[in-house]
Amino acid sequence: MSRIAPAHVYASRIDRVRAEMKATGVDALILSVGHDLPYLTGYHAMPLERLTLLIVPREGMPMLVIPRLEAPRVVPVPGVFETVPWDETDDPVALAHGLLGGASCVAVGDQMWSRFLVDLISHRPSTRWARSVTVTAPLRTRKDQAEIDALTAAAAAADRVAAQLHAGQIPLVGRTEAQVSADISARLIAEGHDKVNFAIVAAGENAASPHHHPGDRVIKRGEIVLCDFGGTMNGYCSDITRCVHTGEIPEDIARAYEVLKRAQAAGVAAGRVGLPCEEVDAVTREVIADAGYGQWFVHRTGHGIGMEEHEDPYMVSGNTEPIAAGHAYSVEPGIYVAGTWGMRLEDLVVATDSGPRALNHADHDLIVVDC
Amino acid sequence: MSRIAPAHVYASRIDRVRAEMKATGVDALILSVGHDLPYLTGYHAMPLERLTLLIVPREGMPMLVIPRLEAPRVVPVPGVFETVPWDETDDPVALAHGLLGGASCVAVGDQMWSRFLVDLISHRPSTRWARSVTVTAPLRTRKDQAEIDALTAAAAAADRVAAQLHAGQIPLVGRTEAQVSADISARLIAEGHDKVNFAIVAAGENAASPHHHPGDRVIKRGEIVLCDFGGTMNGYCSDITRCVHTGEIPEDIARAYEVLKRAQAAGVAAGRVGLPCEEVDAVTREVIADAGYGQWFVHRTGHGIGMEEHEDPYMVSGNTEPIAAGHAYSVEPGIYVAGTWGMRLEDLVVATDSGPRALNHADHDLIVVDC
Repeated sequence: MSRIAPAHVYASRIDRVRAEMKATGVDALILSVGHDLPYLTGYHAMPLERLTLLIVPREGMPMLVIPRLEAPRVVPVPGVFETVPWDETDDPVALAHGLLGGASCVAVGDQMWSRFLVDLISHRPSTRWARSVTVTAPLRTRKDQAEIDALTAAAAAADRVAAQLHAGQIPLVGRTEAQVSADISARLIAEGHDKVNFAIVAAGENAASPHHHPGDRVIKRGEIVLCDFGGTMNGYCSDITRCVHTGEIPEDIARAYEVLKRAQAAGVAAGRVGLPCEEVDAVTREVIADAGYGQWFVHRTGHGIGMEEHEDPYMVSGNTEPIAAGHAYSVEPGIYVAGTWGMRLEDLVVATDSGPRALNHADHDLIVVDC
Repeated sequence: MSRIAPAHVYASRIDRVRAEMKATGVDALILSVGHDLPYLTGYHAMPLERLTLLIVPREGMPMLVIPRLEAPRVVPVPGVFETVPWDETDDPVALAHGLLGGASCVAVGDQMWSRFLVDLISHRPSTRWARSVTVTAPLRTRKDQAEIDALTAAAAAADRVAAQLHAGQIPLVGRTEAQVSADISARLIAEGHDKVNFAIVAAGENAASPHHHPGDRVIKRGEIVLCDFGGTMNGYCSDITRCVHTGEIPEDIARAYEVLKRAQAAGVAAGRVGLPCEEVDAVTREVIADAGYGQWFVHRTGHGIGMEEHEDPYMVSGNTEPIAAGHAYSVEPGIYVAGTWGMRLEDLVVATDSGPRALNHADHDLIVVDC
């Protein structure tokens, strides 16, 4: 769970989101599951079939439509929103429709379950629908100092787990990927995370699948092991990738890793305020392509991070949005030789007016962990 | 992760869902995050900003639109679906729009992120949108034998954890709710669950909040502790609630608990094929209301369960759907005295032609656990 911020933080965010609504012609914002809701109120909706919905009209008090049995979970933030509880036999979508009144353009939280939007559409066939990021991303992408502090603390905790991996404190050889994943997860919690979001452990040929699900594959001696893990600590996310090698490193892997390391460092250094986000992607891709590995770098270079593991801004070709002070994002190029091996190296970065500041400092080398 | 079933299971489900599509005038079904997708293909979409979308047209091969970097995660099911990978700089919504062709009524997976529906609407302003349950619930609510076996095994594992609670093997007094929640979670995994979905531990006055989030509240001697926990095992969910008391039980709590126990047993017994689902709710509510506690039973009696913790059918006033053989659902009345104490008692039940079969058998009494 995220900490509840002082009421004036939420009040100020709602003021700013309303300014964005006015500028973009959005009459009402509706938020449910996802992170825009806690960003504006401190409250996380339960991901269940009972609708929780914050309605932010352009003027007047925001209303949190909530199942009555979940109302005791809400920490009230006076002056910021009111709760509108509904009972088990009420129709919460009809209730929300009524509260939306004559709004003709409604922005919808990205992760709200589609079932509620489908039902709302049947009540309001002529409403125009927009994505909530239209009005929330301009705020959420620019982290304030408290948010940067939280990201920094989470990154330091993830770094400590990476250091344990490098130091050979996490046994690899003879264990399954799933066992190592569980071990890393437990260590993220021990280092202060409230929740583990993922702990990819991919050995040998499995490392060539960027989103591999750790399974029963036993880690052997003499192979690369890709570990990509992160969680949530005080409401903000960590995300780090390090690869280790369980024995002597073959020359082809060593050569590719040197390229990867150079590419990643160049990507971190490229994050200057005012440059387009896609520039960070172009820089890492150029290093990897120049070395002849271009066809094996199959994903974008990075994603924004904050309350969510993946959020705006994305470091991807085509994203011309300028990097701004307070943008927090990953830089994580990879090289994947299908069926053979894969590697990725990832740090988080915060853009500042005096240049990019990396949040992760765990050793960037391909360390041999012979245990 | 759920096990992958034989290909003919998925082929048969897709045939049946298509029959429902024809009967209800749905031209195409689109599924992303949520459980309809694994029910029809064995594949779980990653809950991320990169779109995964199964498109089931009324005729022709279903197509799984998937980020290329996640394609290696897919276990192919020949003859059931084809994959359509998209690259990082492609627009997957435009791709899906093209594949949908002239479909005029499209059913949308309940939990698909709204951002994708909002974007699809802008491509197809005159499409009619429906909920996927229109065509999938008739299949998914009637569990087949393999599904009932999986629910039975998960319930038995949850029962074993409840027995450990009753036997005093889970220390309560002096620990925080969060610590006990973590202990119960670890035991669910130790008993065979792949994943813990929730472990509510609510002591004393916190038990009056039905969806309480376990926190730093230290459990004291002489109070009620409500434990409601469940997870996923081989793709199917468990869900059980038992209350214990850390010391001598005061008379008001003992009296209320006897009513609760009678109400819950009556609700289990009421689950006869052909009766409306709301009858189960009416039966538990009547027992509780007759004893004078009606105002404190603030939620429906139960929910369907299967691949999801909460799914159709719901045991709630207003749901006139007849109970059918293979329906699996919870029976979980509660009594909540705000600010003072709360209690709930929950078993899972499968409806059969020869009557309701309870899946949980842990002791139904309010056991004193003085540790």
